Amino acid sequence: MTFKRKKISVIGSGFTGATTAFLLAQKQLGDVVIVDIPDMEKPAKGKALDMMEAAPVLGFDANIIGTADYQDTSGSDLVIITAGVARKPGMSRDDLVLTNQKVMKSVAKEIINYSPNATILVLTNPVDAMTYTIFKETGFPKERVIGQSGVLDSARFRTFIAQELNLSVKDITGFVLGGHGDDMVPLVRYSFAGGVPLTSLISKERLEQIVERTRKGGAEIVNLLGNGSAYYAPAASLVEMAEAIILDQKRVLPTIAYLEGEYGMNGIYLGVPTVLGAGGIEKIIEIELNEQEKQALSQSAASVKAVMNVLT
Amino acid sequence: MTFKRKKISVIGSGFTGATTAFLLAQKQLGDVVIVDIPDMEKPAKGKALDMMEAAPVLGFDANIIGTADYQDTSGSDLVIITAGVARKPGMSRDDLVLTNQKVMKSVAKEIINYSPNATILVLTNPVDAMTYTIFKETGFPKERVIGQSGVLDSARFRTFIAQELNLSVKDITGFVLGGHGDDMVPLVRYSFAGGVPLTSLISKERLEQIVERTRKGGAEIVNLLGNGSAYYAPAASLVEMAEAIILDQKRVLPTIAYLEGEYGMNGIYLGVPTVLGAGGIEKIIEIELNEQEKQALSQSAASVKAVMNVLT
Amino acid sequence: MTFKRKKISVIGSGFTGATTAFLLAQKQLGDVVIVDIPDMEKPAKGKALDMMEAAPVLGFDANIIGTADYQDTSGSDLVIITAGVARKPGMSRDDLVLTNQKVMKSVAKEIINYSPNATILVLTNPVDAMTYTIFKETGFPKERVIGQSGVLDSARFRTFIAQELNLSVKDITGFVLGGHGDDMVPLVRYSFAGGVPLTSLISKERLEQIVERTRKGGAEIVNLLGNGSAYYAPAASLVEMAEAIILDQKRVLPTIAYLEGEYGMNGIYLGVPTVLGAGGIEKIIEIELNEQEKQALSQSAASVKAVMNVLT
Amino acid sequence: MTFKRKKISVIGSGFTGATTAFLLAQKQLGDVVIVDIPDMEKPAKGKALDMMEAAPVLGFDANIIGTADYQDTSGSDLVIITAGVARKPGMSRDDLVLTNQKVMKSVAKEIINYSPNATILVLTNPVDAMTYTIFKETGFPKERVIGQSGVLDSARFRTFIAQELNLSVKDITGFVLGGHGDDMVPLVRYSFAGGVPLTSLISKERLEQIVERTRKGGAEIVNLLGNGSAYYAPAASLVEMAEAIILDQKRVLPTIAYLEGEYGMNGIYLGVPTVLGAGGIEKIIEIELNEQEKQALSQSAASVKAVMNVLT
Repeated sequence: MTFKRKKISVIGSGFTGATTAFLLAQKQLGDVVIVDIPDMEKPAKGKALDMMEAAPVLGFDANIIGTADYQDTSGSDLVIITAGVARKPGMSRDDLVLTNQKVMKSVAKEIINYSPNATILVLTNPVDAMTYTIFKETGFPKERVIGQSGVLDSARFRTFIAQELNLSVKDITGFVLGGHGDDMVPLVRYSFAGGVPLTSLISKERLEQIVERTRKGGAEIVNLLGNGSAYYAPAASLVEMAEAIILDQKRVLPTIAYLEGEYGMNGIYLGVPTVLGAGGIEKIIEIELNEQEKQALSQSAASVKAVMNVLT
Repeated sequence: MTFKRKKISVIGSGFTGATTAFLLAQKQLGDVVIVDIPDMEKPAKGKALDMMEAAPVLGFDANIIGTADYQDTSGSDLVIITAGVARKPGMSRDDLVLTNQKVMKSVAKEIINYSPNATILVLTNPVDAMTYTIFKETGFPKERVIGQSGVLDSARFRTFIAQELNLSVKDITGFVLGGHGDDMVPLVRYSFAGGVPLTSLISKERLEQIVERTRKGGAEIVNLLGNGSAYYAPAASLVEMAEAIILDQKRVLPTIAYLEGEYGMNGIYLGVPTVLGAGGIEKIIEIELNEQEKQALSQSAASVKAVMNVLT
Repeated sequence: MTFKRKKISVIGSGFTGATTAFLLAQKQLGDVVIVDIPDMEKPAKGKALDMMEAAPVLGFDANIIGTADYQDTSGSDLVIITAGVARKPGMSRDDLVLTNQKVMKSVAKEIINYSPNATILVLTNPVDAMTYTIFKETGFPKERVIGQSGVLDSARFRTFIAQELNLSVKDITGFVLGGHGDDMVPLVRYSFAGGVPLTSLISKERLEQIVERTRKGGAEIVNLLGNGSAYYAPAASLVEMAEAIILDQKRVLPTIAYLEGEYGMNGIYLGVPTVLGAGGIEKIIEIELNEQEKQALSQSAASVKAVMNVLT
Repeated sequence: MTFKRKKISVIGSGFTGATTAFLLAQKQLGDVVIVDIPDMEKPAKGKALDMMEAAPVLGFDANIIGTADYQDTSGSDLVIITAGVARKPGMSRDDLVLTNQKVMKSVAKEIINYSPNATILVLTNPVDAMTYTIFKETGFPKERVIGQSGVLDSARFRTFIAQELNLSVKDITGFVLGGHGDDMVPLVRYSFAGGVPLTSLISKERLEQIVERTRKGGAEIVNLLGNGSAYYAPAASLVEMAEAIILDQKRVLPTIAYLEGEYGMNGIYLGVPTVLGAGGIEKIIEIELNEQEKQALSQSAASVKAVMNVLT
């Protein structure tokens, strides 16, 4: 039918998954299926129902359901993966990688089975390796398997800058490359307040502090919450990417994309500026880097590869 | 200054408080202060920061902070109270009442001290008695102390009707009177789908089932979540009331209002149709009730009084 | 492609057509093609470009073009017809009917040719007969050929009621049946303020005045403007219908629908409550009418038939 | 009252004034008074009423009135001036200046009288000189008398760039200095697509063409419309500035500000990057210019001064 609503499946009913579903519905981007393991099916249903009961008040029309049955996801246009475990005290990085790889493999199987034409967004950490896993396991074209990290990282950077300068977040643009977290490569010289270069508004030392705070932005929230990690900004970031694709907006957003020669890299998922539209990643934008930036990007790629080597 | 932003304090940083803060910020209704007890200050700060980091992506400008210091709430235009404990297995109703009354008393003191001109919205259960407590303890004019229950109850009712008829929630109007939950008095004959009386679209039996489901709507979510209660729809309901007041919309919404003669009641907070605008509850609308409805409302009032008698 | 944007053609680049295009773009419902006759092609292009230049500021992504070449409309999902002449002093009703019928015939031919799967919304007056003309000339299924009048009429009614009672327009529901203008049948007993029957809030005499003002609502604007007729509210009404269809909202809206037995009528386009969704008019809702209402509807139908008899 | 709605007066009920009023109401930024001369009072009332009748459908609560009586504007928080004549064939520039200066003088008198605390936005052309006239005539502090041109100019530039690159307008930032139109100084090296410098995405020649098209952007629309000038994008630009002020957003926007030493200029209104918030122009941002840009800005200032010399 000409006007069929889009179907979006969100894998994982935790805070990030639920907040993602809620924002998708608020923006009326499509109907939403929240999927979790059988043990979490009832909470998933509860959150979905609670959201539906907010719809008359917030004024959106969207069906949101919770389920543990992947058949309910069948024919999804978009699948957003937030499932997986977070790193806990005492857990080695390799344990984390292997545990979440297993989750990705099982999710990939279900996507192939039920939504072979879907575009996929991945949030699960370590996100570069997990996006790669989904890419390999589904065999989907690289344009349709996309990781999130740069939208969130630059959102944090922009927030800190806006607070520093007491300016609207709307007018701060920020730009990050590379991996998530410590390996993030913020391109400060490509970051602006209303078009004015940040370097002319903030001292070099202060800017470096803000960059460092951005790198540790996830940990800052984890430390404050005490129990769990950030979900509002990660969910908002996923939804911005989803909207760009669903409404074919040709947004220029930093995403984790599969590189085949771009930036001199091959066979690796890494954070780079891309154009997001109906076709998923429609283009990878290559920008000129100076020596320092090139080196930082290489190091970021090396970190990603180190994680990829853990994958089975 | 002519264009000073509104300041809204949300007491309680749990799921409902946090979701309320997030929706307030998204709608740019003002700056938001999330307050909790010292033990919860860090999580409150963490959630506030996470929301702020979503702002560049969602495109809103609002300051959101978390705090345990009521001085940060000083000069609030609106205070929304979500604090308090939920009833746990083994806890008697009276225990719940007395515990939350203590919370209300302490919150009231802070509001008097820091925000003497604020309008107050109360969500804490049992909401009729807790709104009454805030009214008594603050000594604020009745128009400025308002409880939430009917917006949520009718949102649930409208959701179930929309699903039953496969129609947009936008076109379903529902109407409830009386207390929250079991004592809710849904006025089915004043409920419509696009102006068409529900009674001509749904069988009497089915409508009664839906009414009953609405009455137990909170419990349905509690059972599904397993651990905790609804927060999306309650938060959305609070925000609809907040918006009506802040933007002076003169909305006709069912709220928990202090009755002095209306509906033949005196000295009691009860759910009735009201006009919400800049002045808080600007009017209580008295509608004609049939015998059955009158009786149900009396019974609802009796339940509220029974709880009020527990108050110290 | 999974996420192709919808394509909407608006026939007529006058104030109503242009405002419709602008609202469609603001809501990001699709890309918009504004079509007019060759003489008006340049103004159509100018308005489209001006709207596009507002996009960065208002934050929407949509392509809007102006054209006189129907090839540019090819593959439209939705076509909205605002073209036609307005009745001028000295012009007989029959002249108006015949002139606009000619316009409809020519538009119908282009739609068949370029957008055979489109759903069509008609605003051109006299709207019942013009919708019928499009239905006959295109041979499209009746569900996909829909006239606008009731959304606008009830919007006017709701505005006047909201002003009378100093209440939010959001909480006023109004209900009209039958033809546009003088033949409008407002169902006052199905109209409410926050669920409260208007008849208990406004005196019978005053309500009748408001109904009468609603009937003459178009003329009131024409008299004020001096030169031209209303366009903000008509455009908003068209866009509400478009949104209901494009987002498959299952809205309950009064539209001009082709009746085959409903309300005891046959072979006539008349204003009735309908469900609007992806399938166009997915259902005609039959409500019980009292004798007076039945009679008014019959009279309204008679007026429509009188106009239909003028058609060649 | 704590939650009193803002009052915004729009002087001039032409297309720009009306579209501005409509967007202000849609965004619920306040109540709107559209003012025109007695001859245009009825059309102003007609447009206001038509907009009000769109409110139930578009879901906004705002009062919009049309009037020729400045008493209705009394106590406005914001006044937006769109009144004045457009240059017609055969009219000398000086005639235009003098005619519109007379309009500004008369408007200024009314503002002093009825809204002594208002912040004022000026759109009337030649906008630099007209903003200066309002500043002088009202004696209001410079922060509260602000001209519009750069938001519109950069919106046009961003639109053309987005179309050139087939990218979302959301990700294009553009930066202009100086006067409106031919004297506009676009800072291409401060303009980006998603943070990527335009100079690395578009050839120098093509960029120069786009800059030139932006300079002539107003004339392009005038030529297309045949009769009248642009209004969608100008109105949207005014509303972005109004929103920044009313919601105290601290937006970084190019506005026409009174310079007292900044950029080496004195006693002149000129387009520069500013911070717009509750206080009006809260800051003028001085950015480093290269020689070529400095020269272009000087030339722009010289043009403004030439117009100012015509003022009586």
